Amino acid sequence: MEQQQFDTFDQRTADAMIAAHENITGLPAYLGARLVELTPGRLKLVMEVREELVTPVGAVHGGVMAGLVDHALGVVLYPLMKPAQWAATTEFKLNYLAAVKKGELVAESRVVSLGRRSAVVRCEVTNDGRLACVAQGTLLISDPPGKPKA
Amino acid sequence: MEQQQFDTFDQRTADAMIAAHENITGLPAYLGARLVELTPGRLKLVMEVREELVTPVGAVHGGVMAGLVDHALGVVLYPLMKPAQWAATTEFKLNYLAAVKKGELVAESRVVSLGRRSAVVRCEVTNDGRLACVAQGTLLISDPPGKPKA
Amino acid sequence: MEQQQFDTFDQRTADAMIAAHENITGLPAYLGARLVELTPGRLKLVMEVREELVTPVGAVHGGVMAGLVDHALGVVLYPLMKPAQWAATTEFKLNYLAAVKKGELVAESRVVSLGRRSAVVRCEVTNDGRLACVAQGTLLISDPPGKPKA
Amino acid sequence: MEQQQFDTFDQRTADAMIAAHENITGLPAYLGARLVELTPGRLKLVMEVREELVTPVGAVHGGVMAGLVDHALGVVLYPLMKPAQWAATTEFKLNYLAAVKKGELVAESRVVSLGRRSAVVRCEVTNDGRLACVAQGTLLISDPPGKPKA
Repeated sequence: MEQQQFDTFDQRTADAMIAAHENITGLPAYLGARLVELTPGRLKLVMEVREELVTPVGAVHGGVMAGLVDHALGVVLYPLMKPAQWAATTEFKLNYLAAVKKGELVAESRVVSLGRRSAVVRCEVTNDGRLACVAQGTLLISDPPGKPKA
Repeated sequence: MEQQQFDTFDQRTADAMIAAHENITGLPAYLGARLVELTPGRLKLVMEVREELVTPVGAVHGGVMAGLVDHALGVVLYPLMKPAQWAATTEFKLNYLAAVKKGELVAESRVVSLGRRSAVVRCEVTNDGRLACVAQGTLLISDPPGKPKA
Repeated sequence: MEQQQFDTFDQRTADAMIAAHENITGLPAYLGARLVELTPGRLKLVMEVREELVTPVGAVHGGVMAGLVDHALGVVLYPLMKPAQWAATTEFKLNYLAAVKKGELVAESRVVSLGRRSAVVRCEVTNDGRLACVAQGTLLISDPPGKPKA
Repeated sequence: MEQQQFDTFDQRTADAMIAAHENITGLPAYLGARLVELTPGRLKLVMEVREELVTPVGAVHGGVMAGLVDHALGVVLYPLMKPAQWAATTEFKLNYLAAVKKGELVAESRVVSLGRRSAVVRCEVTNDGRLACVAQGTLLISDPPGKPKA
């Protein structure tokens, strides 16, 4: 297939996102997600499967993976959008492929379609090299509140 | 449509789940999810949208909703399964319907199909009475490790 | 949850859709789908599972159900939209719950969220009273080509 | 990620599937889908967007794409399964990325996870080189009826 081009990619935004992500709060901080790569249409997030995230059944809670995926789907868009625009997941679907017990989760996103107002993004999560989750979803791109949509 | 019956519902398991959920750890504890109802084929989880879970853009992180949904999809099955069986989400899909800024999230699950080895469950999340998320997914039902699958 | 209201429902459009559907061509005609009800935010389509649609394995081809669902997700919106607007599915997900061998398929859609530019719709398909498929998806609402989007 | 290996791939089954597909009936025949490649974990189906499949709005009916995707998700598994086993989609999700008006649809499936009883498959549909649809779903692998599941 024709490879999607990302002419609007802004390296400085990507660098700033990576730097800012170190001080992120809320759910991504709880998960311990680190943003380690942010290139045109692609992203890599890494987190440790610490013991607290594993259920009594012995596998990482599905919601941990889902939270990581939701985060990975949205962050990849920031260097592709206009300044002050923001992206929000409007829907996604994921398949868990393997029970994860320990080690690292690596989430890699890839933008498969980018329009002015929305994007479709795919994400794969691996656990120590083994595919553990595949996802795809839609992101809505919004202008900053108060700014005219001229 | 024909209403699904849940003859295997065990009230004592449901009561024990509700009691045990107060001491749950990991992601559900981080979210602050409380299990308030567990009836045949149905469940209600409630959590507060505390400030930490809201992103700088001013809405609850999508991963919070996704984590809550994943949890709600699985827990509803426990009183319907045999003792020591466990349920794991194998896939789900969700649509976010509204940005959530504060108040309570109420996740309600409903089992729409239950087999010996899998189930399909739907979940709706409301925010102070307004529908905020709809989801549907598949759960795999597993026997305890080491037990023969006779 | 708060029930979604559909103040924009236009009965004449609904009546016209039902009448026009009898002469529909393409995939819906191949499936033999009949539009039998179109009320505010709801729809009912019915089709016979004729032998040609059943695979050698003895169950209706999944693509038949998927095609019926896609159709059911979009048509429900027409009486709710402005004249000359049109709706297109942008994404959906479905779970097959039972193998269908014969009889009737009844697809019932319900609009769960309606905005100016998009809607989220759920659909259930029953086969002779038994739930056979559940789906949910997003529809995009478009203005007629050439018309200014003032 | 670690590439999935498909040691069970049977070339004769693949050849037989391609030959048999020319005489397929039902929905795939209506769509005009031709099976042109079937290799380990991968498949390519091609169909023409003939006028009948295009709605009055000027784009191919979404259900056509959905039917093609459902077919593409399942057929890829046959050369990987034991003789007489069969595969049925139990769930899938798709995102439409572009309106398709004419030309060819090429559906390419890739098995991302294969177990004894189920598989997860992804599918991409292109229209004259442009990505038009991405999908992912779960297939259930069944033994032939009447055969003991020893």
